[in-house]
Amino acid sequence: MGDGAARLARIVGDKNLLVGEAISEDYGHDEALSFEPRMPAYVAKPSTAEEVAELLKAASELGIPVTARGSATGISGGCRPEADGLVVSFERMNAVLEVDTVNHVAVVQPGVTLSELDTKTTAAGLGYTVYPGELSASVGGNVGTNAGGMRAVKYGVTRHNVLGLQAVLPTGEIIRTGGKVSKISTGYDLTQLIIGSEGSLALATEVTVKLHPRLPHGATVLAPFGDLDQVMTAVPKIVAAGLDPHILEYIDTMTMGAIVYTEKLELGVPDDIRDRTQAYLVVALENRHEDRLHEDVEALGELLGELGATEVYVLEGSSARKLIEAREKAFWTAKTVGADDVIDVVVPRSAMPEFLVKSREMAQATGGGALGCGHAGDGNVHLAIFCKDPATRKKLLTDIFGLAMALGGAISGEHGLGKSKTGYYRELEDPAKIALMRRLKQAFDPAGILNPSVLFG
Amino acid sequence: MGDGAARLARIVGDKNLLVGEAISEDYGHDEALSFEPRMPAYVAKPSTAEEVAELLKAASELGIPVTARGSATGISGGCRPEADGLVVSFERMNAVLEVDTVNHVAVVQPGVTLSELDTKTTAAGLGYTVYPGELSASVGGNVGTNAGGMRAVKYGVTRHNVLGLQAVLPTGEIIRTGGKVSKISTGYDLTQLIIGSEGSLALATEVTVKLHPRLPHGATVLAPFGDLDQVMTAVPKIVAAGLDPHILEYIDTMTMGAIVYTEKLELGVPDDIRDRTQAYLVVALENRHEDRLHEDVEALGELLGELGATEVYVLEGSSARKLIEAREKAFWTAKTVGADDVIDVVVPRSAMPEFLVKSREMAQATGGGALGCGHAGDGNVHLAIFCKDPATRKKLLTDIFGLAMALGGAISGEHGLGKSKTGYYRELEDPAKIALMRRLKQAFDPAGILNPSVLFG
Repeated sequence: MGDGAARLARIVGDKNLLVGEAISEDYGHDEALSFEPRMPAYVAKPSTAEEVAELLKAASELGIPVTARGSATGISGGCRPEADGLVVSFERMNAVLEVDTVNHVAVVQPGVTLSELDTKTTAAGLGYTVYPGELSASVGGNVGTNAGGMRAVKYGVTRHNVLGLQAVLPTGEIIRTGGKVSKISTGYDLTQLIIGSEGSLALATEVTVKLHPRLPHGATVLAPFGDLDQVMTAVPKIVAAGLDPHILEYIDTMTMGAIVYTEKLELGVPDDIRDRTQAYLVVALENRHEDRLHEDVEALGELLGELGATEVYVLEGSSARKLIEAREKAFWTAKTVGADDVIDVVVPRSAMPEFLVKSREMAQATGGGALGCGHAGDGNVHLAIFCKDPATRKKLLTDIFGLAMALGGAISGEHGLGKSKTGYYRELEDPAKIALMRRLKQAFDPAGILNPSVLFG
Repeated sequence: MGDGAARLARIVGDKNLLVGEAISEDYGHDEALSFEPRMPAYVAKPSTAEEVAELLKAASELGIPVTARGSATGISGGCRPEADGLVVSFERMNAVLEVDTVNHVAVVQPGVTLSELDTKTTAAGLGYTVYPGELSASVGGNVGTNAGGMRAVKYGVTRHNVLGLQAVLPTGEIIRTGGKVSKISTGYDLTQLIIGSEGSLALATEVTVKLHPRLPHGATVLAPFGDLDQVMTAVPKIVAAGLDPHILEYIDTMTMGAIVYTEKLELGVPDDIRDRTQAYLVVALENRHEDRLHEDVEALGELLGELGATEVYVLEGSSARKLIEAREKAFWTAKTVGADDVIDVVVPRSAMPEFLVKSREMAQATGGGALGCGHAGDGNVHLAIFCKDPATRKKLLTDIFGLAMALGGAISGEHGLGKSKTGYYRELEDPAKIALMRRLKQAFDPAGILNPSVLFG
């Protein structure tokens, strides 16, 4: 065991430091399609913020790059380790410390999974509303990528649902930001700066999340459309109608076909309608009152009809749940059918038709394709990219990302740049902003140890 | 005219640069009670982002401190100028550039007043939901202080309603952050970092704000309570009930007396009830459907009764409007009745009873008093402080702010620290956080020209 390993082992204890052969292949990757596993030199499993602080101080002094790891369910390579680096795995810091029913918050450690938090908050009739589609994801990972998911259209993304952090700076100080309050005008908002920084500024060791009351009544409506453009025109009108859907998704017909097939769904859409469908909208409503829900579902159905839906199906409980679950697994479906990459650009809602038409044409021009689904209410388009040749794919993605940015959007709405989209960002983003972000990184992390190859890395 | 003035005048044109005697006393202050006016050396009135960039480049080179100014309605001295400084007044950059009804956003210049924006968005059935109680406030000022107001309990504060900025860095670069999208996971969130930075990091030259549909039906309920503690216990229960009030205020009986008297309100509360009242809750509901509103008002009334309200009054249109307007003027009332300072600490909702009791005791122990009202749903307590002796008042405020922080809160929920609360912050905040914020400031503003004496100044 080298000097570095000995020092790290003294901090977390021998059995919580893995070195060399003892590190399983799992620690070498997240779910990004574009990378082969890469093994770190060390994996440390701290159990307290103080241990994390000692680890970061040691890493700063020894010049060891550090990658934080929650559940490694990310798909942009955010927790892909550096070859000579240290992975700080939060698997032992996985407690729900408090469910506070007066302030409607929970205080959790970063390694807590969404599934665990969901269980603990259900008992109180409350819930953390970030559902990035993978309940084994960790809250710490949510903070790193500013995770979103289907319910963001109503409840916002991680940054709207995290009120405070305990965080360790790479220089070893432990700070607290925000708190059990929804508003603060007292200094720079460090909470918001750390959220979405992909583990490059500070490591969260405690997270205070907002909880919302769980509404008892819900319904899911499926509406096939003959025309993708019509779907996109419908979306802002549904938002404007004030029905406040908590899910507002589009799924193109190829993607729906794939998820129906792989997940063995029965949606009750007759063949003749399915054959005329280019895309589906899935809209879910929820309410405290059953009668208001029924009224709203009826109003939604009428509205969808006026907006050009071929039919409107109100899915009953288990079909609805299965469809939502299948939609959440769209990434896995894309992987199964051989997608070469997945992207999640965001554009203004009004720009979705143009973006979808042009990006598809760009992909087809390479001989490949771009298929998908997305959080339509947020303008967040998830595309599976089919394009085998790496150089052609790189060119295609550069063009697609450039298009999204030209339309007023960004490369990623919720996945983050990780290590897979960094090159594109560096190429396409305003150099003045990248220079500023580098200075901010330097202000937090003078030794440059924290996840050095993410973002503009 | 000195060299500095000549250079600044070349940028904005002679008639848009004021120097010396030409600067009216108005430019020397905002509404903070704790300061006498202080005149700047220059006032520049740019009309474009490019002019702002040139001004900041010149100021950086010449070492002139720069204070941005919107409508100067702040009450913490955020736009109080430096004695040898430059005030950049956004009074000419006051256009609503776009009301986008598809993406539900408006794009505005920083000098636009809330009143002007309100008028322009009403026509589209939409609205910007930050109402800090002064409609002559500017959107740029909202961004600077992260302004809040009564509707924050439902719609959030400025940081939840600003999606993007065009901003000028003190080094002269013009950058764009965010956009017409509600979610981005692509690099550090510069929008959120600039919001609430009180003009110390960058100057916003264009702001993209979120708009919400205006709901046609509303009602306001007034509930007197015999006991302040009961009011505070009621608040989280009203939030939990899911009635989604857009206003949830408490007003203590002295403050209610003062605003009823100065604003000549007729609330219809009989003398015998008024005499037994320690505090009032004001709860406003809104809805798309009139019948649902009535149902909810009824449910709210029952709930308030169960929670200990002595009576429940549903105020009709003009009384309700007058009460809300009077509450918005509580600052002016406090000023009229001779308050020595006003503060707006924020604490977790659960800590409000303890905070109110203890802070009142602290004030009374000095021979003075602390009276007020507040955004109860947000734990944001506005107190008028009566304590004539400056040294005693300084000690009292230090103790009150320390109490709020010990309870998990912060010095300011929405007013900002400005130049009036800076000393307290520097004394009470974790030095590691202040050191980090100084490094962030340095990363944006290497010459240290932007509003150098706010925050930790």
